[in-house]
Amino acid sequence: MIDPVGLPDTFVRIVLVGSGNLATQTALALSEAANPPVQVWSRNAEHAERLASMLPGATATDRTEELLCDADLYLLAVSDHALESVAATFPPTSGIWAHTAGSMPMDTLRPYHAQIGVFYPLQTFSRERRVDYSSIPIYIEGNDESVVRLLESVARLISRNVLRCTSEQRLYLHLAAVFACNFTNHLYALSEQMLAAHSLPPRSLAPLIAETAAKVQEMSATEAQTGPAKRDDTNTLQKHLGLLNPYPDWQEIYRILSDSIRKMYGPKEQ
Amino acid sequence: MIDPVGLPDTFVRIVLVGSGNLATQTALALSEAANPPVQVWSRNAEHAERLASMLPGATATDRTEELLCDADLYLLAVSDHALESVAATFPPTSGIWAHTAGSMPMDTLRPYHAQIGVFYPLQTFSRERRVDYSSIPIYIEGNDESVVRLLESVARLISRNVLRCTSEQRLYLHLAAVFACNFTNHLYALSEQMLAAHSLPPRSLAPLIAETAAKVQEMSATEAQTGPAKRDDTNTLQKHLGLLNPYPDWQEIYRILSDSIRKMYGPKEQ
Repeated sequence: MIDPVGLPDTFVRIVLVGSGNLATQTALALSEAANPPVQVWSRNAEHAERLASMLPGATATDRTEELLCDADLYLLAVSDHALESVAATFPPTSGIWAHTAGSMPMDTLRPYHAQIGVFYPLQTFSRERRVDYSSIPIYIEGNDESVVRLLESVARLISRNVLRCTSEQRLYLHLAAVFACNFTNHLYALSEQMLAAHSLPPRSLAPLIAETAAKVQEMSATEAQTGPAKRDDTNTLQKHLGLLNPYPDWQEIYRILSDSIRKMYGPKEQ
Repeated sequence: MIDPVGLPDTFVRIVLVGSGNLATQTALALSEAANPPVQVWSRNAEHAERLASMLPGATATDRTEELLCDADLYLLAVSDHALESVAATFPPTSGIWAHTAGSMPMDTLRPYHAQIGVFYPLQTFSRERRVDYSSIPIYIEGNDESVVRLLESVARLISRNVLRCTSEQRLYLHLAAVFACNFTNHLYALSEQMLAAHSLPPRSLAPLIAETAAKVQEMSATEAQTGPAKRDDTNTLQKHLGLLNPYPDWQEIYRILSDSIRKMYGPKEQ
Protein backbone atom coordinates (compact mmCIF):
# COMPACT_ATOMS: atom_id res chain seq x y z
CA MET A 1 0.00 0.00 0.00
CA ILE A 2 1.20 3.48 -0.83
CA ASP A 3 0.92 5.78 2.15
CA PRO A 4 -0.60 9.07 0.85
CA VAL A 5 1.40 10.96 3.46
CA GLY A 6 4.65 9.52 2.15
CA LEU A 7 4.08 10.01 -1.58
CA PRO A 8 7.12 11.13 -3.57
CA ASP A 9 7.01 14.61 -5.13
CA THR A 10 6.84 13.10 -8.58
CA PHE A 11 3.74 11.04 -7.79
CA VAL A 12 0.95 11.99 -10.21
CA ARG A 13 -2.53 11.75 -8.74
CA ILE A 14 -4.52 10.03 -11.48
CA VAL A 15 -8.26 9.35 -11.53
CA LEU A 16 -8.97 6.56 -13.97
CA VAL A 17 -12.34 6.82 -15.67
CA GLY A 18 -13.29 3.45 -17.15
CA SER A 19 -12.68 -0.23 -16.41
CA GLY A 20 -12.40 -1.89 -19.82
CA ASN A 21 -9.37 -3.62 -21.36
CA LEU A 22 -7.44 -0.43 -22.08
CA ALA A 23 -8.25 1.10 -18.66
CA THR A 24 -7.28 -2.11 -16.88
CA GLN A 25 -3.99 -2.68 -18.66
CA THR A 26 -3.00 0.97 -18.33
CA ALA A 27 -3.82 0.97 -14.61
CA LEU A 28 -1.81 -2.20 -14.02
CA ALA A 29 1.18 -0.76 -15.90
CA LEU A 30 0.97 2.47 -13.86
CA SER A 31 0.77 0.41 -10.70
CA GLU A 32 3.91 -1.53 -11.65
CA ALA A 33 5.58 1.85 -12.21
CA ALA A 34 4.69 2.73 -8.58
CA ASN A 35 2.14 5.32 -9.72
CA PRO A 36 -1.23 3.55 -9.52
CA PRO A 37 -4.38 5.63 -10.10
CA VAL A 38 -5.74 6.89 -6.78
CA GLN A 39 -9.35 6.36 -7.83
CA VAL A 40 -11.24 4.27 -10.36
CA TRP A 41 -14.63 5.34 -11.72
CA SER A 42 -16.83 3.05 -13.76
CA ARG A 43 -20.52 3.08 -14.61
CA ASN A 44 -20.40 -0.46 -13.28
CA ALA A 45 -19.64 -0.31 -9.53
CA GLU A 46 -18.50 -3.91 -9.44
CA HIS A 47 -15.98 -3.39 -12.26
CA ALA A 48 -14.67 -0.26 -10.52
CA GLU A 49 -14.23 -2.22 -7.27
CA ARG A 50 -12.54 -5.13 -8.99
CA LEU A 51 -10.00 -2.95 -10.77
CA ALA A 52 -9.35 -0.73 -7.72
CA SER A 53 -8.71 -3.84 -5.62
CA MET A 54 -5.72 -4.60 -7.88
CA LEU A 55 -4.24 -1.12 -7.35
CA PRO A 56 -2.54 -0.27 -4.05
CA GLY A 57 -4.30 2.63 -2.33
CA ALA A 58 -7.01 3.13 -4.96
CA THR A 59 -10.67 3.74 -4.15
CA ALA A 60 -13.62 2.94 -6.41
CA THR A 61 -16.87 4.66 -7.29
CA ASP A 62 -19.65 4.56 -9.88
CA ARG A 63 -20.80 8.14 -9.16
CA THR A 64 -19.27 11.11 -10.99
CA GLU A 65 -20.16 13.42 -8.09
CA GLU A 66 -17.83 11.33 -5.92
CA LEU A 67 -14.82 11.91 -8.19
CA LEU A 68 -11.81 13.34 -6.36
CA CYS A 69 -11.64 17.04 -7.23
CA ASP A 70 -7.95 17.66 -6.73
CA ALA A 71 -6.22 15.08 -8.91
CA ASP A 72 -3.50 15.96 -11.44
CA LEU A 73 -4.98 13.91 -14.25
CA TYR A 74 -8.38 12.48 -15.15
CA LEU A 75 -7.78 9.73 -17.68
CA LEU A 76 -11.02 9.09 -19.59
CA ALA A 77 -10.59 5.55 -20.89
CA VAL A 78 -14.20 5.03 -21.93
CA SER A 79 -15.70 4.07 -25.28
CA ASP A 80 -15.86 6.75 -27.98
CA HIS A 81 -19.61 7.12 -27.82
CA ALA A 82 -19.62 7.47 -24.01
CA LEU A 83 -16.85 10.07 -23.92
CA GLU A 84 -18.88 13.25 -24.24
CA SER A 85 -21.73 12.14 -22.02
CA VAL A 86 -19.30 11.10 -19.27
CA ALA A 87 -17.35 14.39 -19.52
CA ALA A 88 -20.61 16.35 -19.42
CA THR A 89 -21.56 14.88 -16.04
CA PHE A 90 -18.17 15.54 -14.41
CA PRO A 91 -18.02 18.02 -11.51
CA PRO A 92 -15.51 20.91 -11.70
CA THR A 93 -12.04 19.60 -10.88
CA SER A 94 -8.45 20.74 -10.91
CA GLY A 95 -5.91 19.02 -13.19
CA ILE A 96 -6.03 17.77 -16.76
CA TRP A 97 -8.71 15.81 -18.52
CA ALA A 98 -7.33 13.52 -21.20
CA HIS A 99 -9.05 10.86 -23.27
CA THR A 100 -7.57 7.71 -24.79
CA ALA A 101 -9.60 7.37 -28.00
CA GLY A 102 -7.91 7.06 -31.39
CA SER A 103 -10.62 8.65 -33.45
CA MET A 104 -11.96 11.41 -31.16
CA PRO A 105 -10.48 14.93 -31.51
CA MET A 106 -8.97 16.50 -28.40
CA ASP A 107 -11.57 19.27 -28.68
CA THR A 108 -14.34 16.83 -27.78
CA LEU A 109 -13.40 17.73 -24.18
CA ARG A 110 -13.13 21.49 -24.73
CA PRO A 111 -16.68 22.46 -23.68
CA TYR A 112 -16.18 20.82 -20.29
CA HIS A 113 -12.75 21.78 -18.91
CA ALA A 114 -9.86 24.21 -19.39
CA GLN A 115 -6.84 21.88 -19.55
CA ILE A 116 -7.44 19.04 -21.96
CA GLY A 117 -5.39 16.46 -23.79
CA VAL A 118 -5.11 13.03 -25.39
CA PHE A 119 -3.22 9.97 -24.17
CA TYR A 120 -3.54 7.38 -26.93
CA PRO A 121 -1.78 4.01 -26.51
CA LEU A 122 -1.68 2.42 -29.96
CA GLN A 123 -2.18 -1.28 -29.29
CA THR A 124 -4.83 -4.01 -29.41
CA PHE A 125 -5.97 -4.94 -25.91
CA SER A 126 -7.77 -8.14 -24.98
CA ARG A 127 -9.00 -9.16 -21.58
CA GLU A 128 -7.16 -12.49 -21.61
CA ARG A 129 -3.75 -11.30 -22.72
CA ARG A 130 -1.31 -9.11 -20.83
CA VAL A 131 0.75 -6.93 -23.18
CA ASP A 132 4.25 -5.52 -22.67
CA TYR A 133 3.27 -1.89 -22.17
CA SER A 134 6.85 -0.65 -22.35
CA SER A 135 6.95 -1.15 -26.13
CA ILE A 136 3.55 0.40 -26.85
CA PRO A 137 3.69 3.78 -28.60
CA ILE A 138 1.72 6.40 -26.67
CA TYR A 139 0.64 9.43 -28.69
CA ILE A 140 0.21 12.66 -26.72
CA GLU A 141 -1.66 15.86 -27.47
CA GLY A 142 -2.51 18.80 -25.19
CA ASN A 143 -4.09 22.23 -25.43
CA ASP A 144 -1.01 23.81 -23.87
CA GLU A 145 2.61 22.87 -23.25
CA SER A 146 2.11 22.16 -19.52
CA VAL A 147 -0.56 19.59 -20.41
CA VAL A 148 1.72 17.93 -22.95
CA ARG A 149 4.57 17.81 -20.40
CA LEU A 150 2.47 16.18 -17.69
CA LEU A 151 0.98 13.64 -20.09
CA GLU A 152 4.45 12.83 -21.45
CA SER A 153 5.84 12.30 -17.97
CA VAL A 154 3.00 9.91 -17.12
CA ALA A 155 3.38 8.09 -20.46
CA ARG A 156 7.13 7.69 -19.89
CA LEU A 157 6.44 5.89 -16.61
CA ILE A 158 5.04 2.97 -18.60
CA SER A 159 6.42 3.22 -22.17
CA ARG A 160 9.75 3.82 -23.87
CA ASN A 161 7.89 5.06 -26.93
CA VAL A 162 6.14 8.39 -26.28
CA LEU A 163 5.33 10.67 -29.22
CA ARG A 164 3.33 13.78 -30.02
CA CYS A 165 0.75 13.97 -32.76
CA THR A 166 -2.17 16.17 -33.76
CA SER A 167 -5.81 15.10 -33.60
CA GLU A 168 -5.83 14.84 -37.39
CA GLN A 169 -2.72 12.64 -37.50
CA ARG A 170 -4.22 10.48 -34.78
CA LEU A 171 -7.30 9.87 -36.93
CA TYR A 172 -5.09 8.46 -39.67
CA LEU A 173 -2.99 6.49 -37.18
CA HIS A 174 -6.15 4.86 -35.89
CA LEU A 175 -7.39 4.20 -39.42
CA ALA A 176 -4.04 2.68 -40.44
CA ALA A 177 -4.16 0.57 -37.27
CA VAL A 178 -7.55 -0.80 -38.30
CA PHE A 179 -6.03 -1.96 -41.59
CA ALA A 180 -2.85 -3.39 -40.05
CA CYS A 181 -4.50 -5.02 -37.02
CA ASN A 182 -8.28 -5.47 -37.14
CA PHE A 183 -8.48 -6.35 -40.84
CA THR A 184 -5.34 -8.46 -40.65
CA ASN A 185 -6.73 -10.41 -37.73
CA HIS A 186 -9.97 -10.93 -39.64
CA LEU A 187 -7.99 -12.42 -42.53
CA TYR A 188 -6.40 -14.79 -40.00
CA ALA A 189 -9.93 -15.70 -38.84
CA LEU A 190 -11.09 -16.40 -42.42
CA SER A 191 -8.04 -18.60 -43.02
CA GLU A 192 -8.86 -20.51 -39.81
CA GLN A 193 -12.33 -21.20 -41.20
CA MET A 194 -10.86 -22.44 -44.51
CA LEU A 195 -8.54 -24.84 -42.66
CA ALA A 196 -11.42 -26.14 -40.53
CA ALA A 197 -13.62 -26.67 -43.59
CA HIS A 198 -10.96 -28.91 -45.14
CA SER A 199 -9.87 -30.92 -42.09
CA LEU A 200 -6.50 -29.21 -41.81
CA PRO A 201 -4.89 -28.59 -38.40
CA PRO A 202 -5.92 -25.15 -37.02
CA ARG A 203 -2.27 -24.16 -36.36
CA SER A 204 -1.09 -24.94 -39.92
CA LEU A 205 -0.49 -21.27 -40.74
CA ALA A 206 1.06 -20.19 -37.43
CA PRO A 207 4.68 -20.12 -38.72
CA LEU A 208 3.57 -18.26 -41.85
CA ILE A 209 1.67 -15.65 -39.83
CA ALA A 210 4.66 -15.18 -37.53
CA GLU A 211 7.11 -14.79 -40.43
CA THR A 212 4.84 -12.38 -42.33
CA ALA A 213 4.70 -10.06 -39.31
CA ALA A 214 8.39 -10.52 -38.48
CA LYS A 215 9.49 -9.56 -42.01
CA VAL A 216 7.96 -6.10 -41.78
CA GLN A 217 9.89 -5.39 -38.60
CA GLU A 218 12.97 -5.38 -40.86
CA MET A 219 11.81 -4.28 -44.28
CA SER A 220 8.93 -2.26 -45.69
CA ALA A 221 5.74 -4.20 -46.40
CA THR A 222 5.81 -2.96 -49.98
CA GLU A 223 9.15 -4.71 -50.48
CA ALA A 224 8.09 -7.78 -48.51
CA GLN A 225 5.06 -8.57 -50.68
CA THR A 226 4.89 -12.06 -52.25
CA GLY A 227 2.13 -14.21 -53.74
CA PRO A 228 0.16 -14.81 -56.94
CA ALA A 229 -1.33 -11.28 -57.21
CA LYS A 230 2.10 -9.65 -56.91
CA ARG A 231 3.41 -12.00 -59.63
CA ASP A 232 0.23 -11.37 -61.65
CA ASP A 233 -0.12 -15.16 -61.86
CA THR A 234 -3.52 -15.24 -63.57
CA ASN A 235 -3.78 -19.05 -63.51
CA THR A 236 -3.52 -19.24 -59.72
CA LEU A 237 -5.79 -16.24 -59.21
CA GLN A 238 -8.49 -17.88 -61.36
CA LYS A 239 -8.03 -21.21 -59.61
CA HIS A 240 -8.46 -19.56 -56.19
CA LEU A 241 -11.54 -17.63 -57.29
CA GLY A 242 -12.99 -20.95 -58.49
CA LEU A 243 -12.30 -22.62 -55.12
CA LEU A 244 -14.16 -19.75 -53.48
CA ASN A 245 -17.33 -20.18 -55.57
CA PRO A 246 -19.21 -21.58 -52.55
CA TYR A 247 -18.17 -18.52 -50.49
CA PRO A 248 -19.16 -15.39 -52.43
CA ASP A 249 -18.19 -13.03 -49.57
CA TRP A 250 -14.66 -14.45 -49.39
CA GLN A 251 -14.48 -14.43 -53.18
CA GLU A 252 -15.20 -10.69 -53.16
CA ILE A 253 -12.49 -10.10 -50.52
CA TYR A 254 -10.06 -12.17 -52.59
CA ARG A 255 -10.91 -10.24 -55.73
CA ILE A 256 -10.64 -6.78 -54.23
CA LEU A 257 -7.39 -7.38 -52.34
CA SER A 258 -5.77 -9.12 -55.32
CA ASP A 259 -6.79 -6.21 -57.58
CA SER A 260 -5.30 -3.77 -55.07
CA ILE A 261 -2.01 -5.72 -54.99
CA ARG A 262 -1.87 -5.92 -58.80
CA LYS A 263 -2.47 -2.20 -59.00
CA MET A 264 0.39 -1.54 -56.57
CA TYR A 265 2.93 -3.75 -58.38
CA GLY A 266 1.60 -4.05 -61.93
CA PRO A 267 2.54 -2.06 -65.01
CA LYS A 268 1.84 1.60 -64.26
CA GLU A 269 0.17 2.12 -67.66
CA GLN A 270 -2.70 -0.34 -67.12
CA MET B 1 33.46 -30.64 -49.74
CA ILE B 2 31.61 -33.93 -49.57
CA ASP B 3 33.62 -36.75 -51.07
CA PRO B 4 31.18 -38.79 -53.25
CA VAL B 5 33.15 -41.96 -52.44
CA GLY B 6 32.64 -41.38 -48.73
CA LEU B 7 28.92 -40.52 -48.73
CA PRO B 8 26.93 -42.00 -45.84
CA ASP B 9 24.30 -44.64 -46.69
CA THR B 10 21.54 -42.22 -45.74
CA PHE B 11 22.71 -39.54 -48.16
CA VAL B 12 19.89 -38.72 -50.59
CA ARG B 13 21.07 -37.76 -54.06
CA ILE B 14 18.93 -34.74 -54.89
CA VAL B 15 18.82 -32.82 -58.16
CA LEU B 16 17.41 -29.37 -57.54
CA VAL B 17 15.46 -27.95 -60.46
CA GLY B 18 15.14 -24.18 -60.06
CA SER B 19 17.14 -21.33 -58.54
CA GLY B 20 14.51 -18.94 -57.12
CA ASN B 21 13.91 -17.98 -53.49
CA LEU B 22 12.31 -21.29 -52.50
CA ALA B 23 14.93 -23.37 -54.36
CA THR B 24 17.77 -21.38 -52.83
CA GLN B 25 16.57 -21.48 -49.24
CA THR B 26 15.70 -25.18 -49.47
CA ALA B 27 19.13 -25.98 -50.94
CA LEU B 28 20.92 -24.02 -48.21
CA ALA B 29 18.91 -25.77 -45.49
CA LEU B 30 19.70 -29.18 -47.03
CA SER B 31 23.34 -28.21 -47.21
CA GLU B 32 23.34 -27.28 -43.51
CA ALA B 33 21.82 -30.71 -42.85
CA ALA B 34 24.85 -32.25 -44.63
CA ASN B 35 22.71 -33.33 -47.57
CA PRO B 36 23.23 -30.66 -50.24
CA PRO B 37 21.74 -31.27 -53.69
CA VAL B 38 24.30 -32.90 -55.97
CA GLN B 39 23.21 -30.88 -59.00
CA VAL B 40 21.39 -27.62 -59.65
CA TRP B 41 19.50 -27.03 -62.89
CA SER B 42 18.19 -23.62 -63.89
CA ARG B 43 17.09 -22.11 -67.19
CA ASN B 44 19.55 -19.41 -66.27
CA ALA B 45 23.07 -20.90 -66.30
CA GLU B 46 24.46 -18.10 -64.17
CA HIS B 47 21.83 -18.62 -61.45
CA ALA B 48 22.52 -22.36 -61.48
CA GLU B 49 26.26 -21.72 -61.09
CA ARG B 50 25.76 -19.20 -58.31
CA LEU B 51 23.56 -21.49 -56.26
CA ALA B 52 25.73 -24.59 -56.89
CA SER B 53 28.80 -22.67 -55.75
CA MET B 54 27.17 -22.34 -52.30
CA LEU B 55 26.60 -26.11 -52.06
CA PRO B 56 29.55 -28.42 -51.35
CA GLY B 57 30.05 -30.91 -54.18
CA ALA B 58 27.19 -29.64 -56.36
CA THR B 59 27.44 -29.17 -60.13
CA ALA B 60 25.36 -26.78 -62.23
CA THR B 61 23.69 -26.94 -65.63
CA ASP B 62 21.07 -25.12 -67.71
CA ARG B 63 20.45 -28.15 -70.00
CA THR B 64 17.86 -30.76 -69.10
CA GLU B 65 19.72 -33.38 -71.16
CA GLU B 66 22.65 -32.95 -68.78
CA LEU B 67 20.57 -33.83 -65.72
CA LEU B 68 22.03 -36.67 -63.67
CA CYS B 69 19.98 -39.77 -64.45
CA ASP B 70 20.50 -41.75 -61.27
CA ALA B 71 19.49 -39.39 -58.46
CA ASP B 72 17.03 -40.37 -55.72
CA LEU B 73 14.97 -37.21 -55.94
CA TYR B 74 14.34 -34.48 -58.53
CA LEU B 75 12.95 -31.51 -56.67
CA LEU B 76 11.13 -29.28 -59.15
CA ALA B 77 11.13 -25.87 -57.45
CA VAL B 78 10.05 -23.86 -60.49
CA SER B 79 7.11 -21.51 -60.97
CA ASP B 80 3.66 -23.06 -61.43
CA HIS B 81 3.40 -22.14 -65.07
CA ALA B 82 6.84 -23.57 -65.90
CA LEU B 83 6.28 -26.86 -64.09
CA GLU B 84 4.74 -28.91 -66.90
CA SER B 85 6.98 -27.59 -69.64
CA VAL B 86 10.09 -28.31 -67.59
CA ALA B 87 8.89 -31.83 -66.69
CA ALA B 88 8.06 -32.49 -70.36
CA THR B 89 11.66 -31.85 -71.43
CA PHE B 90 13.23 -34.09 -68.77
CA PRO B 91 15.10 -37.21 -69.91
CA PRO B 92 14.16 -40.55 -68.39
CA THR B 93 15.65 -40.84 -64.89
CA SER B 94 15.51 -43.09 -61.85
CA GLY B 95 14.16 -41.75 -58.55
CA ILE B 96 11.23 -39.57 -57.62
CA TRP B 97 10.05 -36.35 -59.22
CA ALA B 98 8.41 -34.02 -56.73
CA HIS B 99 7.23 -30.45 -57.16
CA THR B 100 6.99 -27.69 -54.54
CA ALA B 101 3.91 -25.76 -55.74
CA GLY B 102 0.98 -25.07 -53.43
CA SER B 103 -1.70 -24.95 -56.06
CA MET B 104 -0.60 -27.63 -58.57
CA PRO B 105 -2.00 -31.16 -58.16
CA MET B 106 0.51 -33.99 -57.81
CA ASP B 107 -0.89 -35.48 -61.01
CA THR B 108 0.56 -32.62 -63.04
CA LEU B 109 3.69 -34.79 -63.12
CA ARG B 110 1.92 -38.10 -63.89
CA PRO B 111 2.32 -38.04 -67.72
CA TYR B 112 6.08 -37.75 -67.36
CA HIS B 113 7.32 -40.19 -64.72
CA ALA B 114 6.29 -43.21 -62.64
CA GLN B 115 7.17 -42.11 -59.10
CA ILE B 116 5.82 -38.67 -58.35
CA GLY B 117 5.12 -36.54 -55.31
CA VAL B 118 4.82 -33.12 -53.72
CA PHE B 119 7.15 -31.40 -51.26
CA TYR B 120 5.40 -28.16 -50.26
CA PRO B 121 7.08 -25.89 -47.69
CA LEU B 122 4.39 -23.50 -46.46
CA GLN B 123 6.24 -20.23 -45.95
CA THR B 124 6.85 -16.85 -47.60
CA PHE B 125 10.37 -16.65 -49.04
CA SER B 126 12.18 -13.45 -49.95
CA ARG B 127 15.61 -13.15 -51.43
CA GLU B 128 16.86 -10.79 -48.72
CA ARG B 129 15.69 -12.67 -45.67
CA ARG B 130 16.92 -16.04 -44.41
CA VAL B 131 14.13 -17.99 -42.68
CA ASP B 132 14.41 -20.59 -39.93
CA TYR B 133 13.56 -23.63 -42.02
CA SER B 134 13.27 -25.93 -39.01
CA SER B 135 9.90 -24.41 -38.05
CA ILE B 136 8.43 -24.40 -41.57
CA PRO B 137 5.66 -26.95 -42.11
CA ILE B 138 6.41 -29.17 -45.10
CA TYR B 139 3.40 -30.91 -46.64
CA ILE B 140 4.12 -34.21 -48.38
CA GLU B 141 2.19 -36.22 -50.95
CA GLY B 142 3.26 -39.20 -53.05
CA ASN B 143 1.75 -41.65 -55.51
CA ASP B 144 2.91 -44.58 -53.40
CA GLU B 145 4.09 -45.18 -49.86
CA SER B 146 7.80 -45.45 -50.82
CA VAL B 147 7.63 -41.98 -52.37
CA VAL B 148 5.99 -40.54 -49.27
CA ARG B 149 8.64 -42.16 -47.03
CA LEU B 150 11.56 -40.78 -49.01
CA LEU B 151 10.07 -37.30 -49.19
CA GLU B 152 9.34 -37.39 -45.46
CA SER B 153 12.90 -38.41 -44.67
CA VAL B 154 14.28 -35.53 -46.76
CA ALA B 155 11.80 -33.07 -45.23
CA ARG B 156 12.76 -34.18 -41.70
CA LEU B 157 16.38 -33.30 -42.44
CA ILE B 158 15.38 -29.64 -42.49
CA SER B 159 12.09 -29.28 -40.60
CA ARG B 160 10.54 -30.48 -37.34
CA ASN B 161 7.11 -30.03 -38.88
CA VAL B 162 6.45 -32.58 -41.64
CA LEU B 163 2.85 -33.48 -42.50
CA ARG B 164 0.90 -35.33 -45.18
CA CYS B 165 -1.96 -33.82 -47.13
CA THR B 166 -3.87 -34.46 -50.33
CA SER B 167 -3.66 -32.30 -53.45
CA GLU B 168 -7.12 -30.94 -52.66
CA GLN B 169 -6.23 -30.03 -49.08
CA ARG B 170 -3.07 -28.38 -50.35
CA LEU B 171 -5.13 -26.14 -52.64
CA TYR B 172 -7.03 -24.84 -49.62
CA LEU B 173 -3.85 -24.54 -47.54
CA HIS B 174 -2.36 -22.38 -50.25
CA LEU B 175 -5.53 -20.32 -50.55
CA ALA B 176 -5.70 -19.81 -46.77
CA ALA B 177 -2.02 -18.83 -46.84
CA VAL B 178 -2.79 -16.14 -49.41
CA PHE B 179 -5.35 -14.66 -47.02
CA ALA B 180 -3.17 -14.93 -43.90
CA CYS B 181 0.08 -13.81 -45.55
CA ASN B 182 -0.17 -12.08 -48.93
CA PHE B 183 -3.34 -10.13 -48.15
CA THR B 184 -2.20 -9.37 -44.61
CA ASN B 185 1.09 -8.02 -45.90
CA HIS B 186 -0.79 -5.89 -48.41
CA LEU B 187 -2.81 -4.38 -45.57
CA TYR B 188 0.51 -3.56 -43.86
CA ALA B 189 1.61 -1.89 -47.12
CA LEU B 190 -1.58 0.19 -47.31
CA SER B 191 -1.16 1.28 -43.70
CA GLU B 192 2.45 2.31 -44.52
CA GLN B 193 1.10 4.53 -47.29
CA MET B 194 -1.43 6.12 -44.92
CA LEU B 195 1.30 6.90 -42.39
CA ALA B 196 3.51 8.41 -45.10
CA ALA B 197 0.65 10.55 -46.42
CA HIS B 198 0.19 12.10 -42.97
CA SER B 199 3.84 12.60 -41.95
CA LEU B 200 3.76 9.84 -39.35
CA PRO B 201 6.87 7.73 -38.67
CA PRO B 202 6.90 4.61 -40.89
CA ARG B 203 7.47 2.28 -37.90
CA SER B 204 4.49 3.62 -35.89
CA LEU B 205 2.52 0.42 -36.26
CA ALA B 206 5.36 -2.07 -35.76
CA PRO B 207 4.42 -2.99 -32.15
CA LEU B 208 0.76 -3.33 -33.14
CA ILE B 209 1.60 -5.60 -36.07
CA ALA B 210 3.84 -7.74 -33.85
CA GLU B 211 1.18 -8.06 -31.12
CA THR B 212 -1.61 -8.86 -33.61
CA ALA B 213 0.41 -11.78 -35.00
CA ALA B 214 1.64 -12.89 -31.55
CA LYS B 215 -1.90 -13.06 -30.15
CA VAL B 216 -3.00 -15.69 -32.65
CA GLN B 217 -0.10 -17.93 -31.68
CA GLU B 218 -1.97 -18.32 -28.36
CA MET B 219 -5.64 -17.89 -29.12
CA SER B 220 -7.89 -18.29 -32.16
CA ALA B 221 -8.14 -15.25 -34.44
CA THR B 222 -11.91 -15.34 -34.07
CA GLU B 223 -11.52 -14.77 -30.32
CA ALA B 224 -8.71 -12.24 -30.77
CA GLN B 225 -10.71 -9.84 -32.96
CA THR B 226 -11.00 -6.23 -31.76
CA GLY B 227 -11.89 -2.93 -33.44
CA PRO B 228 -14.82 -0.77 -34.51
CA ALA B 229 -16.38 -3.32 -36.90
CA LYS B 230 -16.40 -6.04 -34.24
CA ARG B 231 -18.05 -3.59 -31.79
CA ASP B 232 -20.41 -2.46 -34.57
CA ASP B 233 -19.32 1.10 -33.74
CA THR B 234 -21.17 2.84 -36.59
CA ASN B 235 -19.81 6.31 -35.72
CA THR B 236 -16.19 5.27 -36.13
CA LEU B 237 -16.92 3.21 -39.23
CA GLN B 238 -18.60 6.23 -40.88
CA LYS B 239 -15.77 8.52 -39.79
CA HIS B 240 -13.17 6.19 -41.31
CA LEU B 241 -15.11 5.85 -44.56
CA GLY B 242 -15.22 9.66 -44.73
CA LEU B 243 -11.44 9.90 -44.23
CA LEU B 244 -11.03 7.48 -47.12
CA ASN B 245 -13.09 9.57 -49.58
CA PRO B 246 -9.94 10.58 -51.49
CA TYR B 247 -8.97 6.89 -51.81
CA PRO B 248 -11.96 5.01 -53.30
CA ASP B 249 -10.02 1.72 -53.63
CA TRP B 250 -9.05 1.73 -49.94
CA GLN B 251 -12.60 2.77 -49.05
CA GLU B 252 -13.93 -0.31 -50.83
CA ILE B 253 -11.45 -2.54 -48.97
CA TYR B 254 -12.48 -0.92 -45.69
CA ARG B 255 -16.15 -1.42 -46.47
CA ILE B 256 -15.90 -5.04 -47.52
CA LEU B 257 -13.67 -6.18 -44.65
CA SER B 258 -15.74 -4.31 -42.06
CA ASP B 259 -18.92 -5.87 -43.45
CA SER B 260 -17.29 -9.30 -43.25
CA ILE B 261 -16.30 -8.71 -39.61
CA ARG B 262 -19.78 -7.45 -38.70
CA LYS B 263 -21.29 -10.51 -40.33
CA MET B 264 -18.99 -12.80 -38.32
CA TYR B 265 -19.74 -11.19 -34.95
CA GLY B 266 -23.07 -9.42 -35.43
CA PRO B 267 -26.57 -10.58 -34.56
CA LYS B 268 -27.19 -13.81 -36.46
CA GLU B 269 -30.68 -12.75 -37.53
CA GLN B 270 -29.63 -9.69 -39.57
